[in-house]
Amino acid sequence: MRIDKEGFARLQLSLLAEPGDPRLVRLLEDSTAEELVAALTSGHRKDVPPNWTARAHTLVGQAALVLERAAGRGLRWISVADKTWPAGLGDLDHVEPINGATGAPLGLWIRGPADLAELCNHSVAIVGARDATTYGCDVASDLAADLADNGITVVSGAAFGIDVCAHRGAISMGKPTVAVLAGGADVHYPRAHTSLIERIATDSMVVSEQLPGQAPIKSRFLSRNRLIAAMTGGTVVVEAARRSGALNTLNWADQLGRVTMGVPGPVTSHASVGVHQALRSGKAIVVTNGREVLEALGVLGAIDATPDRAPESAYDRLPGLARRIIDALPWGVVRSAAEIGAEVGMPISDVDDHLASLERIRLVNREACGWSLQRRADLLREG
Amino acid sequence: MRIDKEGFARLQLSLLAEPGDPRLVRLLEDSTAEELVAALTSGHRKDVPPNWTARAHTLVGQAALVLERAAGRGLRWISVADKTWPAGLGDLDHVEPINGATGAPLGLWIRGPADLAELCNHSVAIVGARDATTYGCDVASDLAADLADNGITVVSGAAFGIDVCAHRGAISMGKPTVAVLAGGADVHYPRAHTSLIERIATDSMVVSEQLPGQAPIKSRFLSRNRLIAAMTGGTVVVEAARRSGALNTLNWADQLGRVTMGVPGPVTSHASVGVHQALRSGKAIVVTNGREVLEALGVLGAIDATPDRAPESAYDRLPGLARRIIDALPWGVVRSAAEIGAEVGMPISDVDDHLASLERIRLVNREACGWSLQRRADLLREG
Repeated sequence: MRIDKEGFARLQLSLLAEPGDPRLVRLLEDSTAEELVAALTSGHRKDVPPNWTARAHTLVGQAALVLERAAGRGLRWISVADKTWPAGLGDLDHVEPINGATGAPLGLWIRGPADLAELCNHSVAIVGARDATTYGCDVASDLAADLADNGITVVSGAAFGIDVCAHRGAISMGKPTVAVLAGGADVHYPRAHTSLIERIATDSMVVSEQLPGQAPIKSRFLSRNRLIAAMTGGTVVVEAARRSGALNTLNWADQLGRVTMGVPGPVTSHASVGVHQALRSGKAIVVTNGREVLEALGVLGAIDATPDRAPESAYDRLPGLARRIIDALPWGVVRSAAEIGAEVGMPISDVDDHLASLERIRLVNREACGWSLQRRADLLREG
Repeated sequence: MRIDKEGFARLQLSLLAEPGDPRLVRLLEDSTAEELVAALTSGHRKDVPPNWTARAHTLVGQAALVLERAAGRGLRWISVADKTWPAGLGDLDHVEPINGATGAPLGLWIRGPADLAELCNHSVAIVGARDATTYGCDVASDLAADLADNGITVVSGAAFGIDVCAHRGAISMGKPTVAVLAGGADVHYPRAHTSLIERIATDSMVVSEQLPGQAPIKSRFLSRNRLIAAMTGGTVVVEAARRSGALNTLNWADQLGRVTMGVPGPVTSHASVGVHQALRSGKAIVVTNGREVLEALGVLGAIDATPDRAPESAYDRLPGLARRIIDALPWGVVRSAAEIGAEVGMPISDVDDHLASLERIRLVNREACGWSLQRRADLLREG
């Protein structure tokens, strides 16, 4: 792993203080990390905690050791000078602390083959309650699937509930998704999501500003949230109880001038109370589907300027009979031509003809025992 | 029934044209109804449809006949000079037509013992989809019950779905509710709501600008909506599909400068699509409970200026043990002291003591076989 000198100096500084420590932001305002490390080592900076100067001379060796061990676990360290550094993180140097944390991270530990900057270029955070309802989970995965299918990277925190549904929605479309962890990028938390996190690390990107091996503790979830908000073009909250951590991410996104969005839910559901509060206070705008998120992110504008109509989809362009066949095929279900024919009232031979055409334009798959949808037709339909 | 001369002239004019006809608004801008009838009868007005002048001389006799017949059906005619005329209706003379209708009604046919102006003084329209879901119906009746209990008159259209739930919510609290019909005030539409409409006419007020006996046709639903919006301090839409008539009421409320509110719902529900559109376009604000509606109407402001906290309720003021007993009594259920004691882990004698106290402050009812809540404690609690 090749690291530039400034990046290495930043790694050394990261050994001194908890990520998000506002003192580091202040110190790096008027000097580079290299200068700061030199000043600490020589004892010339008097405006820093005494234990920082005391430990300064050990930093070079420690940093090299951390790097070596991390590399053994498949982790790389990137920082602001790297090409793959997400530009949005820099905005964190200009906002007030929330819960005591602020500032762009000194660097990020990353696991995965993707280019993080590229992934974040068109991205959205989908976050929400751990204690999500079936409704919230369905909405989060559908939304993530739809956005991922439209080229938007879904970023979330790999937590229970909405987070994991968001990741899974993107993965279900074979699209990348970024997991930003509150512990080390090699620490699989929650344990139940080990294989999910491994999968994201294999296909896309797992990210953390914490040192490898660090445990996810409460304050780290809160400081981690600022990264999720800053790396993305906007944050969507799907379900959040009155004092949910997801609202913390929304606050960061709001402070950072990102697009802040909330998916409403039943007013009888405690899991939506926090979202509704955010909507009422103007901290978030109402979004109800992927197209509206694209529109809010300003992505849809380039595709179609008319806000109230979805761009014509493959589904829209189909002849009526073919649309009826698509309608008779629920997502994720395999049905025989005979079953479809019975449902739409059409002879099997006609159904077969239409299915063959739909296969050619890659809307349906031929399965061992019938046919299935290749893409979520309902999403296509709803736009 | 005593009617002033101007009111009688207005009744005559109402026989000439469909209510909401913009031509009537224009003609009444520069003359009284009496002057206008005189001008029509003498043939001096040339700027009116020829058939109006042709029929003018028959109007006095017809109007007297209509009044007599209507009185036989328990209907009265009120117009702008009456003390019980809802002041808000006048605002309709200053807004653009929607769907061809506009203007304050020439008068209203009313059935019921209440004072309409007084009812409308603190009032809210709760309207929504006919094809409502269980969710929408529950929310509408809870909201109506809560608002009615807080002294707000619930006004709606007696239609299937949200309308009827809103009326029933108010009635369930023993509070008045106003039904504004699209046909004559003596025409029970829909037929299935005959007994509901009769009950509202007995206890509160059934209202229509249509002549007695007139059938509710589509255009009359749309022009009726303007009355609902104008008579009330604000309109809450609970469920509305993409092109729901309830959105028409919201448009009127918006044009009239009334408070416009929408209750969000699951984004997966077609019945909430229209509400979410209204919220997204800024045509309505998010409300999720009665307190938020009171706040939006400016009613709560006088009681408690802190927006995020409900005014202290009877429930809040109870000692902890009494609150636990209330919590153990679901709304609409009768439980014995023994059952309550078992649930809250308290000796029956203590439960009995608390229940007796709660009965004195009229929070619980003593039933033949146990105890029930006298008011919806959950509404009190949630504020």
